[in-house]
Amino acid sequence: MKLLAIETSNRPLSVAVLDDTKVLATTTTNMSRNHSSTLLPIIEKSISQAGLTADELDRVVVAAGPGSYTGLRIGVTTAKTLAFTLHKELVGLSSLAVLAGNVVAEGQLVAPLFDARRDNLFTGLYRIKQGQPVSVLPDQHISVTEWCQQLATYHEPIVFIGSDVTQYETALQAQLGDQFVRAQSQLDLPQAVVLGLMGRTAAPVKEIHTFVPNYLRLTQAERDWLAKHPKEDHAPYVEKI
Amino acid sequence: MKLLAIETSNRPLSVAVLDDTKVLATTTTNMSRNHSSTLLPIIEKSISQAGLTADELDRVVVAAGPGSYTGLRIGVTTAKTLAFTLHKELVGLSSLAVLAGNVVAEGQLVAPLFDARRDNLFTGLYRIKQGQPVSVLPDQHISVTEWCQQLATYHEPIVFIGSDVTQYETALQAQLGDQFVRAQSQLDLPQAVVLGLMGRTAAPVKEIHTFVPNYLRLTQAERDWLAKHPKEDHAPYVEKI
Repeated sequence: MKLLAIETSNRPLSVAVLDDTKVLATTTTNMSRNHSSTLLPIIEKSISQAGLTADELDRVVVAAGPGSYTGLRIGVTTAKTLAFTLHKELVGLSSLAVLAGNVVAEGQLVAPLFDARRDNLFTGLYRIKQGQPVSVLPDQHISVTEWCQQLATYHEPIVFIGSDVTQYETALQAQLGDQFVRAQSQLDLPQAVVLGLMGRTAAPVKEIHTFVPNYLRLTQAERDWLAKHPKEDHAPYVEKI
Repeated sequence: MKLLAIETSNRPLSVAVLDDTKVLATTTTNMSRNHSSTLLPIIEKSISQAGLTADELDRVVVAAGPGSYTGLRIGVTTAKTLAFTLHKELVGLSSLAVLAGNVVAEGQLVAPLFDARRDNLFTGLYRIKQGQPVSVLPDQHISVTEWCQQLATYHEPIVFIGSDVTQYETALQAQLGDQFVRAQSQLDLPQAVVLGLMGRTAAPVKEIHTFVPNYLRLTQAERDWLAKHPKEDHAPYVEKI
């Protein structure tokens, strides 16, 4: 199976083209502040350097959230457009699972996280089984304190991974003690290769057109709108317009 | 310490700018077939996106071999030129150690390898200690059979890492049995981030100008020359001219 994997959930941008488990081409950067202008040229170059045409791909795999609202929209919209127009399968996977997949220690509990501002996290709990992250606690938007309370019930070491761990390291260590293990910083960047390897065997989405990212929280605009319109229909604002 | 790390030993190209253990910018690609034209623009972009000028760097760390002759020349020449002209420290580290550094399992034996053609390998044996690869058997140019004989004396599992492992997998497994463990393919790409983290604490070279890559074997041109001039001075041909 030939697949294109796209990960733009946060500041890093990662693209890979795989033929089964073989990496044909991949680019990962965390210097891009402009995924909207860099993603498509990198995809085009990756496919051509892999010696393929877009038509020869079997599926497109995208990291579908949580993460930055803009980053997710760019990645998911690009993946949907490619899959829809080229009649390819589309697979959406958790951006947190992609990060957890950098850890390969069998049986290890892993808590990947992204900063969600104001002492809140996008995070989930995974266990590595046969080299793949398996969800233990679902991806969620949660305060650091509440998250530590949940994790403390596991009574075993948990590897925290992600470049945003650094800013919460003191708080996490204070609340979790020896349970807190910091992943080597070389593992902190999400890799489209990992996403692609996970996406080979995952079930494709049934309807590409209606597939949306998993934001896990409302945008600021939606929160503002809801505050001003408390009695109106609470259907997601962005989808509505 | 602010450092620039450059890894172009083989087909993958990886550049990183670090401030101590913090990754400011990094790009890794394995699609480049033209390191000579892509390396400098990527270095320039990495430094600027890290919010630095080249002058603010403290050292340049380069993967100094073994690997592709051309790849090593490009990386090492670029690193030497930058360090020499900007009056920065230069550190050269084993390209095999960089690959081994992708493994983080404490105490694990790791055999990174690059294909050296005709059933020969560039390889070495490392043990992960405190998250860093420590040399157990030196980097060498050796036949697969001889290498397996050496490794068999260790009587413990050895993780083989590198995208070239795939083509030797059958031979390695046949000779080593259960000792042979294939690293997850997501670890096969060398990362300049790992090189940079290793290069933070390594001793810089004393004389930048005379620093040369560690090719570990003669080039085809040198072998041809030696075959035709068996009685002449055997000083390395390339250095001579």
